[in-house]
Amino acid sequence: MKVFKSEELSHQELAQLCERNPLREKSIVDLCQEIFENVAARGDEAVREYTKTYDGVDLEDFRVDVAEFQKAVDQQPRKVIEAFETAIRNIRKFHLSQNLAEQPVEVQPGVTCWRASRPIGSVGLYVPAGTAVLPSTVLMLGVPAKLAGCPKIQLCVPPRKDGSVSPLVLAAAYLSGIRQVYKIGGAQAVAAMTLGTENVRPVDKILGPGNRFVQTAKLVATSYGVAIDMVAGPSEVLVIVDQEATPRIVAADLIAQAEHGADSQVVLVTDSYPLIEAVNAELEDQLGSLPRRELARASIEQSFAMLVGSMDEAVEFSNRYAPEHLILGMVEARKWVGKVRCAGSVFVGEWSPEVAGDYASGTNHTLPTSRLARNSSGVSLDSFVNKVTFQELTREGLEDLAPALETLAEVESLEGHARAVRYRLSREEEVRE
Amino acid sequence: MKVFKSEELSHQELAQLCERNPLREKSIVDLCQEIFENVAARGDEAVREYTKTYDGVDLEDFRVDVAEFQKAVDQQPRKVIEAFETAIRNIRKFHLSQNLAEQPVEVQPGVTCWRASRPIGSVGLYVPAGTAVLPSTVLMLGVPAKLAGCPKIQLCVPPRKDGSVSPLVLAAAYLSGIRQVYKIGGAQAVAAMTLGTENVRPVDKILGPGNRFVQTAKLVATSYGVAIDMVAGPSEVLVIVDQEATPRIVAADLIAQAEHGADSQVVLVTDSYPLIEAVNAELEDQLGSLPRRELARASIEQSFAMLVGSMDEAVEFSNRYAPEHLILGMVEARKWVGKVRCAGSVFVGEWSPEVAGDYASGTNHTLPTSRLARNSSGVSLDSFVNKVTFQELTREGLEDLAPALETLAEVESLEGHARAVRYRLSREEEVRE
Repeated sequence: MKVFKSEELSHQELAQLCERNPLREKSIVDLCQEIFENVAARGDEAVREYTKTYDGVDLEDFRVDVAEFQKAVDQQPRKVIEAFETAIRNIRKFHLSQNLAEQPVEVQPGVTCWRASRPIGSVGLYVPAGTAVLPSTVLMLGVPAKLAGCPKIQLCVPPRKDGSVSPLVLAAAYLSGIRQVYKIGGAQAVAAMTLGTENVRPVDKILGPGNRFVQTAKLVATSYGVAIDMVAGPSEVLVIVDQEATPRIVAADLIAQAEHGADSQVVLVTDSYPLIEAVNAELEDQLGSLPRRELARASIEQSFAMLVGSMDEAVEFSNRYAPEHLILGMVEARKWVGKVRCAGSVFVGEWSPEVAGDYASGTNHTLPTSRLARNSSGVSLDSFVNKVTFQELTREGLEDLAPALETLAEVESLEGHARAVRYRLSREEEVRE
Repeated sequence: MKVFKSEELSHQELAQLCERNPLREKSIVDLCQEIFENVAARGDEAVREYTKTYDGVDLEDFRVDVAEFQKAVDQQPRKVIEAFETAIRNIRKFHLSQNLAEQPVEVQPGVTCWRASRPIGSVGLYVPAGTAVLPSTVLMLGVPAKLAGCPKIQLCVPPRKDGSVSPLVLAAAYLSGIRQVYKIGGAQAVAAMTLGTENVRPVDKILGPGNRFVQTAKLVATSYGVAIDMVAGPSEVLVIVDQEATPRIVAADLIAQAEHGADSQVVLVTDSYPLIEAVNAELEDQLGSLPRRELARASIEQSFAMLVGSMDEAVEFSNRYAPEHLILGMVEARKWVGKVRCAGSVFVGEWSPEVAGDYASGTNHTLPTSRLARNSSGVSLDSFVNKVTFQELTREGLEDLAPALETLAEVESLEGHARAVRYRLSREEEVRE
């Protein structure tokens, strides 16, 4: 990996290193718009054509039937089912902890306000099928959707050339409680879930990772009033370590990210130059025997190590970079937790590999990338609910609040607003007269 | 208002009545793109030109200085300051109740996960200056931004023809703790806050209402990696009442919404036809003396009343319509709270006018419109923070989790993932050897 020394970089060069390209390639936006228009006009027929073009398979029926599900679950070895079950249990447990009931507040006598969660009626999950099969993503989306109580959950996954979909994905869906799976991929899946077709039900919100086409299609979906989790770019990790770190483990953590794809971003930040050298040697060594070495190598070649003067500076750089995953691998890592401001998910200390969160510790792995961790959060139970505010006033509550309400209505020149208060309070007096 | 009877409508006609137009007018998107490109290329100079074109004023300096702030606060009558202070106190109090600390969870022995809030570093608030001056919106955005601890908060508001901005808006900003206000409006304000200029700092997130240009510009901003609160359309209220309701108050509630603008949406849902007739008569009566009667009348003319068979049906229709504001004005309104699934903010019972939430009860008035309440929530403390997940494993925790992690890495063919676990667990053994 390239090595930069922070002290030799200008403010602007540092900022540049933190930039990742957001999605606004006009050609892709235009293509997605066209796909939406076609799916709107011709429904399943258009989806069928795109599936033929992009996935190379002519599918009559996109739906996965019960027998296919059953077969997918049955063919999994016991240890796979157990691994899924461990992950599901931990994901449920952690996401359940996000379900805190807010108590009603009597903000002033007779004025009570509260907020309550309501599951989103219909959610569409997307799981890609690119260079890796990702059943773990099914769990990360399906488990919190079920936990939130979303009544309708459907999943789209691109079909394979033979018209099937990965049994691992189906088994993960089944164990998560999902029963509606469509063999549709790419922008056409997002369009179908946004607009609805003869066979695909339109949804309220679409969540899940995917390539540039899928993510751009999600952006287009928002212009049709469908909500999305986020626009996700390539996966990222930033590792902060000091001289005490074990190069072999640091290299393994970087490679675990790099093997996702050639565009994965891996960044090493440390105050130890010898460590960078040792990690670089380890990278070479480990890459040699890695099955996905070509992807990992391509990723690492365009990644970098940053030599900083202190751990304080390391964490500050990380906050600017706003990585999807942050590994705090320095000595006494826990002490730095409070300084982390911008990151999707943070792995604290030497025994916390990112892989734990990728799969089974319970945290969600659908996280903001491309510096969006500075303004967005990962998928959580919140992603599957609307939070509705309520208020109930008593007559006395309204009376006490009335002067403020009428004054504000007056300064905003909204007489109708004032009347809605005044007419209520004058009602009983009129009756009494 | 037009009257529909639900029993006479087809499923499709009912769905049609719930539709509001989302924002995807290509001409506006193109104009906004052009504004972004110009502001990116020429910074303040471009902003100055747009301000001349759209606001009709040639401004050398967009910034509001301390003296202008001071003057704005000083010139407010005591009762206005008090009304602001009441609103601020209640907004603070209610939004503070949303700040629930989640406790760390030991999902299994030695595997501890938690989630913590971090204030977003830099937020840009937008307050429009169309047919009404809206200091209340400043409070609704500024107070939770301060409460969340956002270190940088700036506000854009369109200048008036004389180059000033409303002292009410400035006073509200000052009392909310905002010190950085720019006299910039429209899409150029959103572009400036997204891209930064010589004088305007780029922000991480943009929040606030505005016309179609501002909202479309916010959509464009997301393609530059800036987060937004929501894409907001015209304001809406849906009022559910039964025969016990007072027509005068129902009409006042409808008018309080309608007076916002000709495109405001007001809907009356009831099981009593005589009530609809009485409300219609009241509307005529009240409109006659309303200062903003032309706007309100235009809004009401394109709005409707829906006669339903029962209160159950009324609430179901409301859930489909997903109104920004819902007034539950029927007898024993509290009983229906649990059935409300899709609404921005709900006003329960006869003493709870929407106006309370517009101004000073403490709930936020920046809410999802255009049926977005089915998949989105209003502005809250959550809108100003990122929620970051953390995890810390012990050696034993990782050991216990390792079989699941390695199995999942194996089925996803990600050997690098498995190694990040294996190398950690083999380390000490090697040392021990």
